[in-house]
Amino acid sequence: MRDRYLDFVNSSFGAGVARSIGLPRPEVLRRHRADRPEFGGMAAIGAGPSPALFDALIDVLQSVGMTGVAHESARGWLPLANEHGAMSGRFEPQAPDANASDRVEALIFDGTGIADSTELTKLYGFFHDGIRSVAKSGRIIVLGRPPETCGSPHAWTAQRALEGMARSLGKEARHGITSNLLQVAEGASFEGALRFFLSPRSAYVSGQVVRIEAAPFVKPADWSKPLSGKRAIVTGAARGIGASIAAVLAALGAHVIGLDVPAAKDALDQTMLGIEDASPSGGVHAALLADIGAPEAPAELAAALDALGGIDIVVHNAGITRDRTIAKMTQAAWDSVIDINLSAQERIDDVLLAQNVLHDCGRIIGVSSISGIAGNLGQTNYATSKAGVIGRVASMERVLQPRGITINAVAPGFIETQMTARIPLGIREAGRRMNSMSQGGQPVDVAETIGWLASPASAGISGQLVRVCGQSLIGA
Amino acid sequence: MRDRYLDFVNSSFGAGVARSIGLPRPEVLRRHRADRPEFGGMAAIGAGPSPALFDALIDVLQSVGMTGVAHESARGWLPLANEHGAMSGRFEPQAPDANASDRVEALIFDGTGIADSTELTKLYGFFHDGIRSVAKSGRIIVLGRPPETCGSPHAWTAQRALEGMARSLGKEARHGITSNLLQVAEGASFEGALRFFLSPRSAYVSGQVVRIEAAPFVKPADWSKPLSGKRAIVTGAARGIGASIAAVLAALGAHVIGLDVPAAKDALDQTMLGIEDASPSGGVHAALLADIGAPEAPAELAAALDALGGIDIVVHNAGITRDRTIAKMTQAAWDSVIDINLSAQERIDDVLLAQNVLHDCGRIIGVSSISGIAGNLGQTNYATSKAGVIGRVASMERVLQPRGITINAVAPGFIETQMTARIPLGIREAGRRMNSMSQGGQPVDVAETIGWLASPASAGISGQLVRVCGQSLIGA
Repeated sequence: MRDRYLDFVNSSFGAGVARSIGLPRPEVLRRHRADRPEFGGMAAIGAGPSPALFDALIDVLQSVGMTGVAHESARGWLPLANEHGAMSGRFEPQAPDANASDRVEALIFDGTGIADSTELTKLYGFFHDGIRSVAKSGRIIVLGRPPETCGSPHAWTAQRALEGMARSLGKEARHGITSNLLQVAEGASFEGALRFFLSPRSAYVSGQVVRIEAAPFVKPADWSKPLSGKRAIVTGAARGIGASIAAVLAALGAHVIGLDVPAAKDALDQTMLGIEDASPSGGVHAALLADIGAPEAPAELAAALDALGGIDIVVHNAGITRDRTIAKMTQAAWDSVIDINLSAQERIDDVLLAQNVLHDCGRIIGVSSISGIAGNLGQTNYATSKAGVIGRVASMERVLQPRGITINAVAPGFIETQMTARIPLGIREAGRRMNSMSQGGQPVDVAETIGWLASPASAGISGQLVRVCGQSLIGA
Repeated sequence: MRDRYLDFVNSSFGAGVARSIGLPRPEVLRRHRADRPEFGGMAAIGAGPSPALFDALIDVLQSVGMTGVAHESARGWLPLANEHGAMSGRFEPQAPDANASDRVEALIFDGTGIADSTELTKLYGFFHDGIRSVAKSGRIIVLGRPPETCGSPHAWTAQRALEGMARSLGKEARHGITSNLLQVAEGASFEGALRFFLSPRSAYVSGQVVRIEAAPFVKPADWSKPLSGKRAIVTGAARGIGASIAAVLAALGAHVIGLDVPAAKDALDQTMLGIEDASPSGGVHAALLADIGAPEAPAELAAALDALGGIDIVVHNAGITRDRTIAKMTQAAWDSVIDINLSAQERIDDVLLAQNVLHDCGRIIGVSSISGIAGNLGQTNYATSKAGVIGRVASMERVLQPRGITINAVAPGFIETQMTARIPLGIREAGRRMNSMSQGGQPVDVAETIGWLASPASAGISGQLVRVCGQSLIGA
């Protein structure tokens, strides 16, 4: 599905028209491309008092080939960078009309040591100086602590306040720049999250808060193939977001089993063939036909996966809509949506977990929705099912922790698919523009987020919901 | 501040115009009036399996003078109501064109026993049958359990799913009907919350989830004056929302101390005089002039309140805005907003608590904002301070629990005040209409919500944020 307005105002002719009559011009977001370097350029570093993550930050920037340049608030950075043998320098804020090549790719603020609201003033200094220096599709990352882990109410309060800053910056930055808050617990490795949020893979993830707990952390041998040797199943893989998830997981090195209903056989076969073609030397992929709503499906699925040697990653993407206001909705429309979108996930996971078909250190990722967060008119059934997915993830975190399995969900906002293409024009345009990127996302944006959560490096992230919505206005 | 559009389409001439050209017609919300009965009419009762709250529900309905009529899903209701000697009957769903007098004032669904997603189907049956039978400015209340208290992941998931239903119903219901979810812990008394959410006092509170814990519960001798004998301080009381809070707390029986800056002396005096006049036989009220940002303010305030015999209710309403994008914001604009809206609250409470000026079983209520939830363009300072208020409330809950003190915050959405009157017309209109009530709220809506949280009957509610936003679309 194309966003013709976005295409037009970014064409050479359309750009002139847009400028002369003052039309808004959403940025064409930079996304991951295998033929382009994922990282590069400079990251400006700012900090509050006693930043705890400089060492780790220097190491990550070094390993991705970015140069950390220190804002005056980040006093300890330069000597520490020298110690690590890392490239560094001083951050020189750019004038608004500065050359694009002098811009920084990221602003990173280490606020982990902020222990009182009076220390929030450090945020101001850094972002006031730095915001105009960020390149298009650049990144703003605020690092803090999970508020509830702070010893004092004042520290908890100040850490919670960082969220207001990160979210506001996401709304101010424009030009395809994202802004997110990573709450890094003491002892937690945040390299996986930092790489994701710095990279073009997180193009449509903004205004989010992600908590990272300390957990045994397996560094991928090859960060471009973190899922090497892992087997993943994706439900609803024939088309749209599901097909994109399958493709991204395969590109990240996984063996992918695409599942869909028998009626979607041709589309599923084509999707899986496309994945084979894209990575001829890659994993072993397979198509599986099943109706996940059928009573016998969980047992059959478990047997099939067990025969393959078990599974590492389960992506519950299959979902249906039967939209109607509650007064006009049929019982069947209610029941089928709850069953496919929620109960079927429970039945399948219960069997996979009881029979140990899902390996230790596995990953479960559910697809929720903004409707599940905020509710939606005409979607009582869908919103209830998707709110349930959020609950499932929260409820299973502790249960799965002893086995090293994480469970998370993503909540797509307005994503350009065949489904959204059928929305009437006016509502579609509103849905597209009511977010900080002024555009809909692509299926690949959801898929990349799932790829990150599926990585061994995401061991410290569980029980969470990550929106892929360009920081949609809509929420709760 | 008047909403002229709302006035027009609800005038006899305007209503005809609106109908003939298809303009939306927001409902004039029914609000509390001392000269009208607060409760009355019928509440339709629905339930999932094993509803746990029927007994309590029957008692509350009986004490407010409402008749519970049982939907077919609420099987045990009728015999139980007979046992309690309560009026009851069977719920007869109304056709869309039914007489207004046959409508019910509320739909109440007891979902506490729902322990699996497959049991959510009961929600469908009740709301499908009932939604068209609700009167204008009626109420939808879903009762559940705090999901994290549920023993099994399946129950947790299903309880969390209720939220998607309650929020979607809020968006579908229209006609000034609110929809909220009360998560009632085992052993908790929810009479205070139920009364608030049934009454016209909650006119602009919709799409909310409130958790009620078991806590020693003091039943007010007179539910219309639950704050009798309590002393309350309201900061920023001279005008707008603060003045309305002072008036509502006084009307609920409290002795109110209105505080504002010396420059607002005249307005504050007038506000306090108005409160005296409105309740000549009521409490003893006082005006207090102080700049809460001054370093000596907390100690002076504590001394003044101590001299009066201490305080029971603290409402941190005073707040300022200094809007500018971060690039153009001055350091002073940042610092003053963080200081007044957040740090000053911390300083004051620290002294009031350390010196036991705030009595045991006291109440602290902060005013946050949707900007604090979602961030806002041009409000990095304000959003950061208001996100901090949310953190403060969460961080202090456990600390204050041993003393029986609760701490909560409200987050106003678009409220009609002098402040919002200065917003440019286009943005103002969008802000007004982008919520389930299609209109801005009134200061009294925020004040009534604070009045409820301040009540002795709200002992089980702490650490929470309640939005007063008509279920604004905007969120996180």
